[in-house]
Amino acid sequence: MVANDMEQQCASDNYSGICPEAWEAMREANTGHALPYGDDAWTARASELFRDLFETDCEVFFAFNGTAANSLALSALCQSYHGVICAASSHVETDECGAPEFFSNGSKLLTLPSADGKIAPEALRELALRRSDIHFPRMRVATISQSTETGRVYTVAELEALAETSRELGLLLHMDGARFANACASLERSPAELTWKAGVNVLCFGGTKNGMAVGEAVIFFNKELAADFDYRCKQAGQLASKMRFLAAPWVGMLESGAWLRNARHANRCARHLATRLEGVQGIELLFPVEANAVFLKAPAEKLELLRAAGWRFYTFIGGGARFMFSWDSTVERVDALADDVLRLCC
Amino acid sequence: MVANDMEQQCASDNYSGICPEAWEAMREANTGHALPYGDDAWTARASELFRDLFETDCEVFFAFNGTAANSLALSALCQSYHGVICAASSHVETDECGAPEFFSNGSKLLTLPSADGKIAPEALRELALRRSDIHFPRMRVATISQSTETGRVYTVAELEALAETSRELGLLLHMDGARFANACASLERSPAELTWKAGVNVLCFGGTKNGMAVGEAVIFFNKELAADFDYRCKQAGQLASKMRFLAAPWVGMLESGAWLRNARHANRCARHLATRLEGVQGIELLFPVEANAVFLKAPAEKLELLRAAGWRFYTFIGGGARFMFSWDSTVERVDALADDVLRLCC
Amino acid sequence: MVANDMEQQCASDNYSGICPEAWEAMREANTGHALPYGDDAWTARASELFRDLFETDCEVFFAFNGTAANSLALSALCQSYHGVICAASSHVETDECGAPEFFSNGSKLLTLPSADGKIAPEALRELALRRSDIHFPRMRVATISQSTETGRVYTVAELEALAETSRELGLLLHMDGARFANACASLERSPAELTWKAGVNVLCFGGTKNGMAVGEAVIFFNKELAADFDYRCKQAGQLASKMRFLAAPWVGMLESGAWLRNARHANRCARHLATRLEGVQGIELLFPVEANAVFLKAPAEKLELLRAAGWRFYTFIGGGARFMFSWDSTVERVDALADDVLRLCC
Amino acid sequence: MVANDMEQQCASDNYSGICPEAWEAMREANTGHALPYGDDAWTARASELFRDLFETDCEVFFAFNGTAANSLALSALCQSYHGVICAASSHVETDECGAPEFFSNGSKLLTLPSADGKIAPEALRELALRRSDIHFPRMRVATISQSTETGRVYTVAELEALAETSRELGLLLHMDGARFANACASLERSPAELTWKAGVNVLCFGGTKNGMAVGEAVIFFNKELAADFDYRCKQAGQLASKMRFLAAPWVGMLESGAWLRNARHANRCARHLATRLEGVQGIELLFPVEANAVFLKAPAEKLELLRAAGWRFYTFIGGGARFMFSWDSTVERVDALADDVLRLCC
Repeated sequence: MVANDMEQQCASDNYSGICPEAWEAMREANTGHALPYGDDAWTARASELFRDLFETDCEVFFAFNGTAANSLALSALCQSYHGVICAASSHVETDECGAPEFFSNGSKLLTLPSADGKIAPEALRELALRRSDIHFPRMRVATISQSTETGRVYTVAELEALAETSRELGLLLHMDGARFANACASLERSPAELTWKAGVNVLCFGGTKNGMAVGEAVIFFNKELAADFDYRCKQAGQLASKMRFLAAPWVGMLESGAWLRNARHANRCARHLATRLEGVQGIELLFPVEANAVFLKAPAEKLELLRAAGWRFYTFIGGGARFMFSWDSTVERVDALADDVLRLCC
Repeated sequence: MVANDMEQQCASDNYSGICPEAWEAMREANTGHALPYGDDAWTARASELFRDLFETDCEVFFAFNGTAANSLALSALCQSYHGVICAASSHVETDECGAPEFFSNGSKLLTLPSADGKIAPEALRELALRRSDIHFPRMRVATISQSTETGRVYTVAELEALAETSRELGLLLHMDGARFANACASLERSPAELTWKAGVNVLCFGGTKNGMAVGEAVIFFNKELAADFDYRCKQAGQLASKMRFLAAPWVGMLESGAWLRNARHANRCARHLATRLEGVQGIELLFPVEANAVFLKAPAEKLELLRAAGWRFYTFIGGGARFMFSWDSTVERVDALADDVLRLCC
Repeated sequence: MVANDMEQQCASDNYSGICPEAWEAMREANTGHALPYGDDAWTARASELFRDLFETDCEVFFAFNGTAANSLALSALCQSYHGVICAASSHVETDECGAPEFFSNGSKLLTLPSADGKIAPEALRELALRRSDIHFPRMRVATISQSTETGRVYTVAELEALAETSRELGLLLHMDGARFANACASLERSPAELTWKAGVNVLCFGGTKNGMAVGEAVIFFNKELAADFDYRCKQAGQLASKMRFLAAPWVGMLESGAWLRNARHANRCARHLATRLEGVQGIELLFPVEANAVFLKAPAEKLELLRAAGWRFYTFIGGGARFMFSWDSTVERVDALADDVLRLCC
Repeated sequence: MVANDMEQQCASDNYSGICPEAWEAMREANTGHALPYGDDAWTARASELFRDLFETDCEVFFAFNGTAANSLALSALCQSYHGVICAASSHVETDECGAPEFFSNGSKLLTLPSADGKIAPEALRELALRRSDIHFPRMRVATISQSTETGRVYTVAELEALAETSRELGLLLHMDGARFANACASLERSPAELTWKAGVNVLCFGGTKNGMAVGEAVIFFNKELAADFDYRCKQAGQLASKMRFLAAPWVGMLESGAWLRNARHANRCARHLATRLEGVQGIELLFPVEANAVFLKAPAEKLELLRAAGWRFYTFIGGGARFMFSWDSTVERVDALADDVLRLCC
């Protein structure tokens, strides 16, 4: 009916479609009748699988996309007069069109400069303590991205240090895990170790970039923080009536292990591109490649050549291209990209 | 992986799954890469199909669910100090947990009593003119449900009269079309006749209850009302990154005609139940059966018997059961329901 | 500079100016420098006086007007998905242009029909228990007006019954006390007896209608409910920088006893008018006159005659005039009004 | 009743009380009855005086304080998805506890680094054009402070350049005039020249710091931007019922010329302190003294000595003290301050 003729790209992990495991689960879920709004067997099963995966009795909710998952989670942690500390380059600050402020009715994002998308305990402390008068938002949450928007990961030790500092400061720790699976794959640590065991209070676990159509999981490790979150979902337009179709793909992903397999594959593709480019005269990669992204520093005119060769990618301030890999990236295309970069951008 | 063992129910049209035409389109869309956020061919095609269907150059957006579609549309029409007039029994008033107020940051719903879910021009006028001081919201929108929550439909003449009155009063006319297809099927009038030709400004066209997994279309017949609606969708967490999976089912539904076929089928099932019950001593149906719902007046103890027989249904204040049919309802189950009602509820 | 030539009216208690005690305190406060934002001696003194008056260690804040005081107090008690139960005729529902919904970002007011502006425990219970699903706001607060918009008062027993029912239902009890002083004067009960001793959690104590220029006191009897309320005031534009000028009038009113004297006087004026009119053939008063308001039922044409005679008053749906008295009402004018009513409206 | 024993300070212009001209007007306004909510003669007169002062048919509203005036004005210019560009040091960004975001339900402040609190056309252009995708707020307003938080002023030429750039970019230009009078006094240009003639669309004209108790004027030079602003004021708790007491002081200030006289006096005090300190070995003033503020760079331990000597002042990041003068500052105290600074801080 509609031609899908776009060649595989490395622009973003949301260019790709639905992976087989997620698809198959949706297909299985699509038989007969089910109770709506999450009272169905698929939602129960998905929640159970998350509790198994995280080895704890967490509260699990499903939102339609990452904007909503993160913004709603933050709005549950914050009152309107609260402040949320994040990296200046974090997605909630730079790419959500004011969604966190909208959902929370005014919670203010306070940004920390960050060379690589990560924030450090000392900087967090300095900002959190900078003001304590009522003319400035009351600091309430620190939010971090794991993996970061620059394709880096926080180690367990780094997470623990941030969580420790957050606790001291009376801050809750929220993790934007749009690419959480990639961090798990990269660090070879368990989801539990990378979240609540390290001190994370709430995780938004991204399904879309991991291979699903829609559906992010909001996971509260402290049950009291999840109070009435179902009401928030409903009021904010994030409660699916046919919830089974948000939950079933998660069942498919978690039961089959595809969530981690997909991430490992995407990470490997990034690593492969990096390996092809590292050390080449005239090529500069901006960040250590730890997850599924590669950032190439290059002048605009060279990027134009790359575009003319058919490649799509995001550019960033300062000059360069971001390449992002997903569950369906192929080594052939990564090599083709490497070839073109080496040919056109040195 | 998960057992789907619920027998077919007549409780709500969101108990059913994805119809074959929607499913097949999703399957076709799930090949290769596509641009995200609606810049893909499926979204373009779906929008084009809506413009064809409505015979006008309307603006089309996709939201995840009906709560969001209606609330976001209303927030685009209203400032926070505006008033929205609706029937006291309308879904936006009774079943959205304050979503319209949340999305609009305070627009107030002003309700008209209504025996059957419809509002009349005179009542609309009276409420709209009741107050004109700044201590009361400034009236801005009238919203109606087509078909209504009681399974009734507005005729073209009724719509025209409401639109005429709205225009005179300086009100915009919004239509909650969660079951718009059922109204089209019932009235045998074109989508254009039931909307912009009659004077409707914005329609939220429901896909979920029509046979899709997620995805409602917000259709602006006046382009200036749609200004920046894409920004609203983004900020409110209603912009799908893999938009093709919201759009493709619409392509499947619209190209195949399933949108109307499904609605006709559901309406016929409701009519069939009504035919079986009408005129029977001791049975009272509350509203004329014009779409896919049947409302049976019955005391609580008889409804308990029906429940004990395995049937699920919503009850309502005043005493009775609502039965709602969908694309996958079967005549056998409708007959089984009729048999049990006749046996247990007379 | 500007002519003040309006004859004394009985339309509203906000037509009157600043009473001598409030004025004198402002004058005294207007010497030298003071710390801003409430860190001054007048604010401390006013808070202390409130704690004395209420015989308890309550938390006291000052807002600029009643709209803000009530809406901010409710927003402190509610999350956006909560419901607030009130009388259909309550000021928060009918005369705040959606302010409660705006301040709370969507908390929904659920109204109880009420013949006289009061709500009863049974009706409160019925509404609070009507729904318990996530598609409807979660009930959180009951708000009552003391004295009511109809000039009636809740007795201590009535308050206790409402509070008891609220507690059982898990609801907080908020009192809109725009005319709280009039209720105290009417009932001859202490402020403590009419609030926390009866089970009220939060009171907005109106200063404007009692004889001040601006400045309502928000009084939390449960300290934990007041957490961060100073931040809410600041963010919502309700923190006066020269706070002493909001606080000093309260010092004047409370130290001198003018708050109660003013209310007694206004109540007496209302009673005087009622006495002049009661029992007269053709005259119907709508409500028992318990505070500072008198409601006269009369057809529109007779009210026109009264207006033509120079009187100003509010009218209401159903047909009639509201007369409201304040600290500066004079018996001569009340008698003049009574004369004209008897002459023109029988 | 309460002792006002604080010695005159130079910490902020909101430490001072009500100037005689404002007080006298309030006194005159406090006779008899007046229509509420701004339908009184004083409000009409104040609005007329503003139109005279600005030599144009502007729309005038009164809000209780600067937080509300600026935030409400911005919310009238913006939808929730809009962006507001301001200096990183601007009061709306640093000292309003998220009020602009709260009133607008999410409009995001985008900040420009600024050495002295002013923003330049090129920087404005760069930020406004940095992004044009829907994942980032749509730029809508540039807001500037006149005089700035650093005590500097924009010249007419600078304002014209900013307005010209704003127009080209499709941005509205808002002026936070908490100390607008000080800018007029400093530049010796008319209010019209410093606002609409230069291209400013909306001005919040501060009364509090100019010598009033409460009451800022929001002045729309483009009438269409003021549409329904009265509803916004009402809903946001910024409509005074006894409005004459907000308006009358403005009548007093504008008719008597005190608004400008007060500002000139405060500016002169600042200049006097600067003159005493400039050129002294070991003393560094941070910004040219153009309005009523003096910023002294000094290490923390020296500021402690100054504090121990009884002086109050705000400190700022980077290290130093801000001194701010008002209508009631006395040369004797300025000299005393200068003496102590010279004695303790060199």
